[in-house]
Amino acid sequence: MRFNGKTITVSVFGQSHAAAVGAVLDGFPAGFRVDRDALRAFMARRAPGQGSHTTARKEKDEVEFVSGLTEDVTCGAPLCLMIRNGDVRSGDYAEQRDIPRPSHADWPAFVRYGAAHDVRGGGMFSARLTAPLCAAGGLALQWLREQGIEVFGHIASVGGVKDEALDPVKASAADRGRMAARILQVLSAEAEQKMLAEIEKARLEGDSVGGTVECCALGLPAGIGGPLFEGLESDLAAALFAIPAVRGVEFGCGFGAARMRGSEHNDPYTVEDGKIRPLTNHAGGIVGGMTTGMPLLVRLAFKPTPSIGKEQRSVSLSRMEPVSFTVKGRHDPCVVPRAVPVAEAVTALVLADRLLTERGGR
Amino acid sequence: MRFNGKTITVSVFGQSHAAAVGAVLDGFPAGFRVDRDALRAFMARRAPGQGSHTTARKEKDEVEFVSGLTEDVTCGAPLCLMIRNGDVRSGDYAEQRDIPRPSHADWPAFVRYGAAHDVRGGGMFSARLTAPLCAAGGLALQWLREQGIEVFGHIASVGGVKDEALDPVKASAADRGRMAARILQVLSAEAEQKMLAEIEKARLEGDSVGGTVECCALGLPAGIGGPLFEGLESDLAAALFAIPAVRGVEFGCGFGAARMRGSEHNDPYTVEDGKIRPLTNHAGGIVGGMTTGMPLLVRLAFKPTPSIGKEQRSVSLSRMEPVSFTVKGRHDPCVVPRAVPVAEAVTALVLADRLLTERGGR
Amino acid sequence: MRFNGKTITVSVFGQSHAAAVGAVLDGFPAGFRVDRDALRAFMARRAPGQGSHTTARKEKDEVEFVSGLTEDVTCGAPLCLMIRNGDVRSGDYAEQRDIPRPSHADWPAFVRYGAAHDVRGGGMFSARLTAPLCAAGGLALQWLREQGIEVFGHIASVGGVKDEALDPVKASAADRGRMAARILQVLSAEAEQKMLAEIEKARLEGDSVGGTVECCALGLPAGIGGPLFEGLESDLAAALFAIPAVRGVEFGCGFGAARMRGSEHNDPYTVEDGKIRPLTNHAGGIVGGMTTGMPLLVRLAFKPTPSIGKEQRSVSLSRMEPVSFTVKGRHDPCVVPRAVPVAEAVTALVLADRLLTERGGR
Amino acid sequence: MRFNGKTITVSVFGQSHAAAVGAVLDGFPAGFRVDRDALRAFMARRAPGQGSHTTARKEKDEVEFVSGLTEDVTCGAPLCLMIRNGDVRSGDYAEQRDIPRPSHADWPAFVRYGAAHDVRGGGMFSARLTAPLCAAGGLALQWLREQGIEVFGHIASVGGVKDEALDPVKASAADRGRMAARILQVLSAEAEQKMLAEIEKARLEGDSVGGTVECCALGLPAGIGGPLFEGLESDLAAALFAIPAVRGVEFGCGFGAARMRGSEHNDPYTVEDGKIRPLTNHAGGIVGGMTTGMPLLVRLAFKPTPSIGKEQRSVSLSRMEPVSFTVKGRHDPCVVPRAVPVAEAVTALVLADRLLTERGGR
Repeated sequence: MRFNGKTITVSVFGQSHAAAVGAVLDGFPAGFRVDRDALRAFMARRAPGQGSHTTARKEKDEVEFVSGLTEDVTCGAPLCLMIRNGDVRSGDYAEQRDIPRPSHADWPAFVRYGAAHDVRGGGMFSARLTAPLCAAGGLALQWLREQGIEVFGHIASVGGVKDEALDPVKASAADRGRMAARILQVLSAEAEQKMLAEIEKARLEGDSVGGTVECCALGLPAGIGGPLFEGLESDLAAALFAIPAVRGVEFGCGFGAARMRGSEHNDPYTVEDGKIRPLTNHAGGIVGGMTTGMPLLVRLAFKPTPSIGKEQRSVSLSRMEPVSFTVKGRHDPCVVPRAVPVAEAVTALVLADRLLTERGGR
Repeated sequence: MRFNGKTITVSVFGQSHAAAVGAVLDGFPAGFRVDRDALRAFMARRAPGQGSHTTARKEKDEVEFVSGLTEDVTCGAPLCLMIRNGDVRSGDYAEQRDIPRPSHADWPAFVRYGAAHDVRGGGMFSARLTAPLCAAGGLALQWLREQGIEVFGHIASVGGVKDEALDPVKASAADRGRMAARILQVLSAEAEQKMLAEIEKARLEGDSVGGTVECCALGLPAGIGGPLFEGLESDLAAALFAIPAVRGVEFGCGFGAARMRGSEHNDPYTVEDGKIRPLTNHAGGIVGGMTTGMPLLVRLAFKPTPSIGKEQRSVSLSRMEPVSFTVKGRHDPCVVPRAVPVAEAVTALVLADRLLTERGGR
Repeated sequence: MRFNGKTITVSVFGQSHAAAVGAVLDGFPAGFRVDRDALRAFMARRAPGQGSHTTARKEKDEVEFVSGLTEDVTCGAPLCLMIRNGDVRSGDYAEQRDIPRPSHADWPAFVRYGAAHDVRGGGMFSARLTAPLCAAGGLALQWLREQGIEVFGHIASVGGVKDEALDPVKASAADRGRMAARILQVLSAEAEQKMLAEIEKARLEGDSVGGTVECCALGLPAGIGGPLFEGLESDLAAALFAIPAVRGVEFGCGFGAARMRGSEHNDPYTVEDGKIRPLTNHAGGIVGGMTTGMPLLVRLAFKPTPSIGKEQRSVSLSRMEPVSFTVKGRHDPCVVPRAVPVAEAVTALVLADRLLTERGGR
Repeated sequence: MRFNGKTITVSVFGQSHAAAVGAVLDGFPAGFRVDRDALRAFMARRAPGQGSHTTARKEKDEVEFVSGLTEDVTCGAPLCLMIRNGDVRSGDYAEQRDIPRPSHADWPAFVRYGAAHDVRGGGMFSARLTAPLCAAGGLALQWLREQGIEVFGHIASVGGVKDEALDPVKASAADRGRMAARILQVLSAEAEQKMLAEIEKARLEGDSVGGTVECCALGLPAGIGGPLFEGLESDLAAALFAIPAVRGVEFGCGFGAARMRGSEHNDPYTVEDGKIRPLTNHAGGIVGGMTTGMPLLVRLAFKPTPSIGKEQRSVSLSRMEPVSFTVKGRHDPCVVPRAVPVAEAVTALVLADRLLTERGGR
C-alpha cells in the first residue's frame, strides 16, 4: 500500500476505523523547514464536513509528526505522519460484512483477504486513506515550490458541467489565485454555481455524480523522464490510479489526440530568448516520456460515488442469494471537490521523487 | 528501460539502428513449452511492411532465444530474446541531430542524454523497441492461455471512425475469432474499410492520424490486486503508458464514468450457479484496485504519428534559430494497427506477473 | 530505512529521542492471529535495563498496534507498530553535535545529512531502532512457527569466550529450550558465567567488548532461493548487515571453509525415509543460493560498543581542532546479549518474505 | 538473476552451455567513452585456461556490445553485453541429471525448477555467469576511475597460506602496481609461490582448496550510505554473496572485531590539512552504514571448489538410492585466483550505483 518512488517512498497505513491513518515518508530531503500552517490549510481542502456537497463525517485531520522532524526541520529520518481517526461511529457492520456494496471494494476484498478483512467504513479501501497521501504530498508540494515548481489542479467537470480549461501554454500561478476564494476549486464562477447545483441535485435524489480533475505542474525543467517504462507518464499514471475512484488518466490532448491529425497535434519548436521551447503544447508537457519544459497537464476521470441513498441490488454472502438493500452511513454525493488536493498531492510526490532522483537524493 | 513486475521483469535493450533490439525476461516459470510458431505469428502482427498503412521498413522480427530455453522448454534461467536489426539504412543523421523533430523524443532526449544520444531512427525511443515487448509479452500470452486467460484487443477507433465496442459482460474468445481474417484487427468489417480509407487519406496528404485501442482479458479470477498503489490499474497504466504514443488510459466506462450518476454506473451483484458476479460491468472488471472476475476492459489513446510528410517548423540546435524542414525516412501514417499486439503484450506481462505473484512465482 | 522484501516490507521510523520509534509492516498475511504475550516476551529480550550487562535506559517497549489488527487478527492492512520513547533524557547535546564520537555514525551522518541531523542519542542511527525490527520480526517469527519453522540464536562468543556451537545437523528446538532459563542466551552454563565476567570486566574498566551471534532456522523446505543475486545468502546478509554494529556475516563453515579442502567441505547426499538430504552440513543449509532442507546456520560478528567510559580523542567541528573528551550517557558494555533477538527477528523477516513469495503472498 | 541497484541494474542472462552469457547494464551514464582494451585485459584476468591452477576450458570471453554504444561512447541506452560460449562440450549429461553433485546447486535446483533445469555445466548456477558480471563491473571500474576511485583486490589466503594484508590506512594504487606482473594477484612474492604450491598439491590429489579475497576501494568520499537497510555494507554484502562459492563477508576487522575491546577498535578522529579523518581504520571505511573517506576494506571467504576428482557419495534421483561416483569435466582446483576480478567487478557495481544515486543518475 506504498508509493515506491526511486528516492521517495510513502508507506501508507491505517483503516477507516483504526486508531489512526498515516504514512511513513522516506527519502525526503534533510534540512527542509516544514510550514505547518500551509500543510494545515492544504489538509483542510481535503477534509470532510465542508458543506452539503461533502460527507458529514467530522475530522480535524491534524497531522502529527511522530518522527523525522526536529523543531519543524526535517532531520533526514523518515517522517511518520499520523492522523487520528476521530469521528468513528462504531455501529453495526454485520450487514456490510454480509452484503457487499455494489462498485465498492467489499466483495473483491472479501475474495482477496478473506473474512478477516476490516469492512468498517471500507477499511483500508476507504477514501479516508487519501488523508495521509495529502500529508506526504503536502510536504512534497512545499519542497517543489522551493524549487520554483507549482502544482495545482481544478475541477474540470462535474457530470456534464465543465469548467474553463487551463491554457496549455500560458497556464500560470495566477490561475490558482483566481480559485482561492471559491467554495469549489474551479476557474469559472459560473461553472462553480452550476456544479454546486449538479451535486445538490444528485444529493437530493439520493444519487451521486462523477467528474474530472485537471492538474498542472509549472516550472518543470525539460528532460525529466526516459524511454519506455522510465517515462514520466508511467510514474504519474501509476500513482494517480492509486487514488480511489479514478477510472481514466490522460496527458495533454489525451483521448482527444486520437481524433487528431499529426499536422494538427505536433508541437513545433521555436527559439525564444536563446532558449528552445515548443510553440504549442498538445503534448501536455511530456514527449517521449520526458518533460519539455512546458506546463505538464494531466486529467483524471472520477466515477460517481458508489455509496448512494437509493435502494440497490446485491447478494447476501451468508445465504448466497440476491437481496435488495440500501447503503447506510455518510458519504459525498461527488468525490471530485475533495479529490483535487489529493491529485495535487500525488502529482507532487511523483515529481519530487523524479527531481530528487535526477539531482541526487539519497 | 525495464518492466519491473514483482515476479517478472523485462529488461529491454537496443536502439533502432543498433545490432539488435531485445529483452531479458526474468521470472518466467520454468518448464513451460514455448510455441515458436504462435510467437512468430504474434510478432508478425506487429512487424512493419504489411501494406500501405504501415511503414516500408522490412524486418523479419525473428526472435532468437539466446538463453533460457532448452529444446523449446524454459529451464528457469532468464530468457534473452534477441531480434536482429536488419533493414537499417545508415544514411546521414546530421540533420536529425541538428533539427529536433516536433513531438518526437529528439529534443528532450538531447537535454537528458546530451550529444551522445543515438538519434539514428530515434535510438532507444524508436517504436522498434516494441518488438522485444511483443516477444516477451507473446510468451506471457501463451502462459496466460494455459491458465485459461485470453487477452486480446482491437482497434476501437481511427480518427473519427469507430469500431463496435466489446460487450463488457459477454465479450468472448469468439470476438477474437471474428477478427482473424481481417487486414485490421477490428470487429466490424464496415469499420475496417472506413479506417483503411481514413489512414490512406492521411497518408496521401502527407499526414498521419491517431486512434484508440481497446484491450480485454477474459477468464481472470476475482480478487487480484489491492488497495492504493497496489491496485491493478496502477500496474496496467504504468506499463501501457510505456508504449510510445499513448496519451490516455481508461478502464471500463473511463472518462465516460465522469458524466454518469452512481445509480447508473454501479454494478449490482447477483448469484449465478452458486457464484457471485456483477450483473453489469461499467467497472471494466476492476473495483477497488482488484479484479471482479468480469472481463477486464482497458482503452488506450494513441496520438497521430509525429513523423509526417508535410513541411514543419523547428529549430537548428547548432545555429539556435528557427528553421523549416521535412521529416525524412519511412513511417506509419497511423500507429494504431501495429499497436494492438503491443497493447496485448504489455497487458499480458502485467497480468502474468500479478498471477505469478499471487500464486507464488519465484 | 526500510526492509524491501519481495512480499514483505518494513518501513522503520523514529529516532532515539523522537516521540516514538516504529515500523509499518506491509505484505504480512491477512487472517493471522497475533499472540501479544509472546510478542511482549520477545520484545523484553531486547529491552534495556535487564542487568549490569545492559544499559540503564528504561523502556517498556510496549508495541502499540495503530493499524492492521482487528481483535488481534491481521486484517490485511499494513500494520503500524509503534513503540513510545519513554525514558528520554533531554539534556544538552551541544557537545555531541560538536564532537563526533569515534566509531559512531555522528561524523559521516553530519557529512551526509548536514547540521539538521538529529544527534540526540544517535538519532536514527541509534540501536533503539532495533526495537521496531523486533516488533515486525517478532510477528514473522510467530508466522514461521505456524509453518513449522523455528528461528533462534545464541551468543556464540563474547570477546575470547566461546559458547558451544550448534550441531549443524542435529540442531533442534530442544537447544532453544536449554537456554530458556538463562540470563544470557547461551547453550553452555559455563560459557554464560565466563561471558558475564568478561562483560563485567569491560564495564568496570570503562570499556566494551565485541562478540558473535549464531542464528539457525529449522524446518525450512529445500529449494528456497535462486541463482546469483537471487541467492538466499544475499537477502539474509543484506538484512543482517542492517543491524547496527555488525561487521561480518558467514554461513555454515564460513571463513573456516576458506581453509578447507573440497573433500572435507563437500556435503554428500543420502536417502533417508525416501527423502534426499545431505549427510553433513558444512554449507549451513544453503548451496547455490538455495536451501537444502538442513538447518540454516548463520553467524554475525559484532564490534565492541563504540561508547566507552574512557577518554578518547576526536575533533571539534566548530573549531576544527583535535580534542580529548569522554562519551556521556548510558550504554551497553556489550551489545551482543540484546542483539540475539534482533538477529532472530531480522532472519525471520527474510525467511517469511521468501516463503510468502514462493508460495504466493500478495 | 539481476543486480538491482537504485540507479544501475544488471540483468544477467545465460547458462554455461547456452549460446551465450551476458548482461543488460541499465542506468550507466551516457557519454562515457569505453576503453575496450582495458576491458579486454580485465576480462582476461577472469578467463579460464591461464595455467594449471585454472580449468582447461578455453574461452576468449570477448565482450560484444549489442546495444548502447555508438563509436565506443555510451549513448544512454541499456548496454547489452554478450559473451559467446565457445568451448562447450555437449557430451552426455544423463548422469549429472540423475546424480546431484555434492555441494553444487544440482539438487536444490532440481527441487526449485524441476526437471526442466538446465544441468549442462551447472546451467545458470555455473561460475561462467561471473563473466557478464565482469563485463558490466569492468565498465563500472572504468567509470569509478574517472571519478578518482580505485577498486582492486588481492588473494588474501589460499588454504592456510596468507598474503600480506593491505594497510587499512595507507593502502594505495601502488599496491595494485606491485601485483601487475605476478601470476596470482598477491602482494607478497613469497606468498604467491606458496599459494601456487598449495593449489598444485590439491590438484594433484584430485582435491580442491578454499581461500579468501580482500578487496579495497580508495578515494571514496565520506557520507555515502545511510541508516539500517540503507547501509553500504548491506548493498555490498548482498552483491558479494551473489558470487558463487562465497561463504562469508566481513568489513574492516570483521570477525576479528568480535574479539576486541572498544578502546582498541574505536577509530579516533583527527584534523589534517583542514580535513577531518579517522586516525586508524578498524572500521574498514564504513561506520553507521556510511563511508568515512578511509579505504573501504572488505574480505570474502570462498569455499573449496565442490568439483573434485575424488570419488564421492551421492544419490541417484531415478532410483532413490545411494551411489558412489566421480565428478567429470574440467574445473579449477581453487576458485580464488579467478575470483579476484569478480569481487572487484561486483564491488565496483555497488559503488558506482551508490555514487550515481547520490549525485543524481537518471
